[in-house]
Amino acid sequence: MSKIKKPEMTDAGLGFSKPAIAIDERGNSRQVELVGERALTIYVDKQEIVTLMTMGTHPELLTLGYLKNQGFFEHINEIKLVQVDWETEAVAVVTNHENSDFSEQMKQRTVTTGCGQGTVFGRLVDKLKNITISPLNFKQSTLYALLDSLKAHNEVYKKAGAVHGCALCTASEIDFFIEDVGRHNAVDAIAGYMWINGLAGENKIFYTTGRLTSEMVIKIAQMGISILLSRSGATQMGLDMAKQAGITLISRARGKHFMVLNGARNIKFNMDMTYN
Amino acid sequence: MSKIKKPEMTDAGLGFSKPAIAIDERGNSRQVELVGERALTIYVDKQEIVTLMTMGTHPELLTLGYLKNQGFFEHINEIKLVQVDWETEAVAVVTNHENSDFSEQMKQRTVTTGCGQGTVFGRLVDKLKNITISPLNFKQSTLYALLDSLKAHNEVYKKAGAVHGCALCTASEIDFFIEDVGRHNAVDAIAGYMWINGLAGENKIFYTTGRLTSEMVIKIAQMGISILLSRSGATQMGLDMAKQAGITLISRARGKHFMVLNGARNIKFNMDMTYN
Repeated sequence: MSKIKKPEMTDAGLGFSKPAIAIDERGNSRQVELVGERALTIYVDKQEIVTLMTMGTHPELLTLGYLKNQGFFEHINEIKLVQVDWETEAVAVVTNHENSDFSEQMKQRTVTTGCGQGTVFGRLVDKLKNITISPLNFKQSTLYALLDSLKAHNEVYKKAGAVHGCALCTASEIDFFIEDVGRHNAVDAIAGYMWINGLAGENKIFYTTGRLTSEMVIKIAQMGISILLSRSGATQMGLDMAKQAGITLISRARGKHFMVLNGARNIKFNMDMTYN
Repeated sequence: MSKIKKPEMTDAGLGFSKPAIAIDERGNSRQVELVGERALTIYVDKQEIVTLMTMGTHPELLTLGYLKNQGFFEHINEIKLVQVDWETEAVAVVTNHENSDFSEQMKQRTVTTGCGQGTVFGRLVDKLKNITISPLNFKQSTLYALLDSLKAHNEVYKKAGAVHGCALCTASEIDFFIEDVGRHNAVDAIAGYMWINGLAGENKIFYTTGRLTSEMVIKIAQMGISILLSRSGATQMGLDMAKQAGITLISRARGKHFMVLNGARNIKFNMDMTYN
């Protein structure tokens, strides 16, 4: 990999949540925290690409990760500038290319929704065929230590709900944690973080509060990540895709519980669970 | 409204979930239920429209509701046939139009994700400007009776997780309940159910397990529904949209708890909560 030259970027992250007044079941007025949700339209070399709905905590990383995951760019050095302006709800990306034309990428663009609408699905499955993930051995004790570390995060979820959290992890350590109104935004922002820091997915664990659907597994495979861990359940197709790519898939990880759906041979069960 | 002539339809609903083998935290092998997830590509008069990822329990209603919510059709009588074929993962919709051309609708199509990617957002907000929902008075006791009725549903969620449930309700009665891997699919299938049965949204309550984001509220407004009820939280923009359209918005409805974020004047607090 050639040397990374980070693009010039704004630092326009927004706060998590804002107060609102609600009436509770006793008829009492209470202050609650509501998650912010903003529209952000991405322009690359003045060409409009997409509008994302986001909490806006890491708009620059979200933009970079979205463009990377959608195949607009290969190398971070192609990008010169990422400039977020909330006034106009726009982010301007300037590349080092002259006469750039993204009509091909726009046609090919995959709208991964995770909510199951709009997927150009065949193309995604085709992509998966070329991916094989190297297995990562992982101890049960490390998994529990990681779940403990994750407890401290998920703050917005606990405070305001209505968000999904995702984390990029190494062993029991959290490298980067992000929450957003859409779980695909959270994944894309982590892809942006990995891209700009030149991180590969090997030896990484990806944690999500969200469901393990086919589209989620495919994105994680594209990012080359070995272990995918969720507090929620998986779909059958999510499991099929994990098997195909060789991703260790762990669902329903809460407290001391978890379910390994694929790659159990990579997990070392080193805890005495007799009294649990 | 002119008389409804229902289209000819297949009845190709799939079962909920299928068994898989997982290894639990004790290293024991256990049978778990995983939600099915299938790709379904919609063709209208042989023109490819979109591929949806769905559990497939109500593929015909999902198809109809998707097309209605995306503005492809106004009247159900325009549609002659809805034919689902899981072998080819396709649904063929045949209209009564000659030489139909959907290029305009395709351009205008809103990819509502609920996961916050791909929205042609401005167009949605514009649509909302023309909508005013008539308020519906609702008793706290009826709300609790409805939450009790809903408990019996949510079966897939309880069994397999990884899904969102939605229900169309009248007072404490559930008219139609559906679960899908994507909450927007569940909403669209309910729109299909309303469309084919000639039901208006007035006097209806819409329940969802999912988050109350802007896109969810806009869809409910389009369907003319008075009260939107969720067991999850809302975003700030979701609340703004509900205020604009006049939708009564109730979040965090679980057990005896709930939070009215908009339209509290429509709720009659008729329960003695002293001992709760």
